Amino acid sequence: MNALVVDSAGFALHALEAHKPDGRAITLYGREPVELQGPVPSPGPAPSEPPAPHLRWHPFRGEWVLYAAHRQERTFEPRPGAWNPLAPSGPGDAPTELPLGVYDVAVFDNRFPALAAAPGSPPPAAVPTLPAMGHCEVVVFGQRPDAPLSSQSVAQLEVLLAVWGHRTRLLGTRPGVEYVLPFENRGVEMGVTLHHPHGQIYAYPFVPPLPAAMLAREREHYYRRGRTLLESVLEDERRRPERVLYASDEAICFVPAWARYPYEVWIAPTRPYATLDALDDESRRALATALATALRKLDRLWNRPCPYLMVWYQAPMDGRPHPESHLRAEIWPVLRAADRVKYLAGTELGAGLFTNDLVPERTARELQQVEVDAR
Amino acid sequence: MNALVVDSAGFALHALEAHKPDGRAITLYGREPVELQGPVPSPGPAPSEPPAPHLRWHPFRGEWVLYAAHRQERTFEPRPGAWNPLAPSGPGDAPTELPLGVYDVAVFDNRFPALAAAPGSPPPAAVPTLPAMGHCEVVVFGQRPDAPLSSQSVAQLEVLLAVWGHRTRLLGTRPGVEYVLPFENRGVEMGVTLHHPHGQIYAYPFVPPLPAAMLAREREHYYRRGRTLLESVLEDERRRPERVLYASDEAICFVPAWARYPYEVWIAPTRPYATLDALDDESRRALATALATALRKLDRLWNRPCPYLMVWYQAPMDGRPHPESHLRAEIWPVLRAADRVKYLAGTELGAGLFTNDLVPERTARELQQVEVDAR
Repeated sequence: MNALVVDSAGFALHALEAHKPDGRAITLYGREPVELQGPVPSPGPAPSEPPAPHLRWHPFRGEWVLYAAHRQERTFEPRPGAWNPLAPSGPGDAPTELPLGVYDVAVFDNRFPALAAAPGSPPPAAVPTLPAMGHCEVVVFGQRPDAPLSSQSVAQLEVLLAVWGHRTRLLGTRPGVEYVLPFENRGVEMGVTLHHPHGQIYAYPFVPPLPAAMLAREREHYYRRGRTLLESVLEDERRRPERVLYASDEAICFVPAWARYPYEVWIAPTRPYATLDALDDESRRALATALATALRKLDRLWNRPCPYLMVWYQAPMDGRPHPESHLRAEIWPVLRAADRVKYLAGTELGAGLFTNDLVPERTARELQQVEVDAR
Repeated sequence: MNALVVDSAGFALHALEAHKPDGRAITLYGREPVELQGPVPSPGPAPSEPPAPHLRWHPFRGEWVLYAAHRQERTFEPRPGAWNPLAPSGPGDAPTELPLGVYDVAVFDNRFPALAAAPGSPPPAAVPTLPAMGHCEVVVFGQRPDAPLSSQSVAQLEVLLAVWGHRTRLLGTRPGVEYVLPFENRGVEMGVTLHHPHGQIYAYPFVPPLPAAMLAREREHYYRRGRTLLESVLEDERRRPERVLYASDEAICFVPAWARYPYEVWIAPTRPYATLDALDDESRRALATALATALRKLDRLWNRPCPYLMVWYQAPMDGRPHPESHLRAEIWPVLRAADRVKYLAGTELGAGLFTNDLVPERTARELQQVEVDAR
């Protein structure tokens, strides 16, 4: 059960797999061997109905829409006010999602998943349907409720990157999975109600519309130029680093010249690793440093936790080679000033044309001037 | 100056054009001849710098991003607490955007437009750029600050539809404009800070990505089937009206079988009018009735003003025929329950896969049961 899932010269990652009383899987990860110091809890019984999400075809947009009716029906059991479902709980505590023990990061099946491993048949509908096959996992970034990623050491972020890599490999080889997307919604402005630092991973049965559209452009570039689109971009950024926030031989963090959100930041390895799983020790460490730099600068910018969406784009897990794919994270802060939310409205959502009141060169300069210690 | 811009057997629309002290255009519209009863105000002087928005190419998404740096720089003059810039102001009042007078609807140039009539040259950037040519107008739905569209009579909504039609024609024939999009962002949940009922119109120099993608699918359907995609959909809806909220021979209001937002509602004429400008008296009146029904049901559903984005999709104004285009409004409420906002996060914004916790047949049933008097 306690296995070494990454074991290289400079880095080791231990994992311990278990099952919750309600049947869901949980995996605890650590740089040191993982130790369970109590039973693995569930915050409640298994739902009486198994989740049966389905997809319907939107004939105007030409994309699938996901219906997860079981999520709206979920009951919220009364709990003590300070109850934190993502903190470890021991015997006598109100049960949470995590056990007591020695581990750094925990990953478990979402209790109310939008995509399900065995979703059953869709109900009849006026448009084409599909069962919404897939997996939804919750990734708890640490045992402490008050330690956001921006406060974590580079060594801790290395663990997280290795965990994301391991989940990508595991989920990506499950039948029917074509794309694995790790992301973090952060802050009440993003709709987050649980404040214990955590993210999610969705494993989709197809490459979703947005990554698919971007990969098509990346493929076009790759076959025309013989290198990834991001490699071409990074060469420009390095030559004229006015939007660069951090750069080493192995990783970079920059405000793209086409930022849609005012303080948008991209993070990438300089070499075209296709997936999180493919990173070597050196690139993983450099990427963790770039990530630490970005997150700390964003939190230091206005001296408040910055609400954002962080998405990690990687190659499809469809068994085919993807030389066009170049791993990257995009961080989209949803503020345009310390106290002003960037709302998406008519022109963004209705027309698909993003409007940004701040040019990237200006936000990059502001973020360059925020001094942080990236260790 | 006071002209009849719509003059048919059953319906007349008067318009009076004027200019504000800062140079911006304003047009007042009414079913009766418009009467100005005071000077046309501006809330402040013209900006010292003319707006110079520009577009940059996003090489991964393959779309333009709009930079309107002058908007962030705007100064907010101190004002009395109750100052409402969208209410009429007379001599002695703090000046607003609207004059005293007899009129129903007012349309004026946005003071801080995201797109500009003469945007100048873009600054140098690392990606392709374009001047952000276009027009941004504000549409004030009435003189009363407390009369949202849901409270307006069908006759008043007819005026608004005729105004949108007139603006579509006017803006659509200005040089360089290819697409006219009327929309309303409603509610603080949509980022709206001015509560006086109003909407906006953007006139774009190209067909924006989202309407363009939908029109491509509509075109494909039209050339395969000889009728619009929406006509095919409406035939199905009428045959089995489980998601229909209102239907007459001329107009329909329904929850689409592929709703992305929990209480999403579409409104359309049954016949394939391509633009708002093309509506005849009968279809305009029926569409106003359908619109009244939808907006009243949404506000009555939870007995609170429903925050939403309403977008009117129509044919491009590119001088070419668009038999595939079929005018419609999409209303996207941003709540999934009376007190729960539908946030867009990882899977919606990051993957492009919308997740809806409520199936359309259920929300349609709920909305069908909300009784309203649509007059």
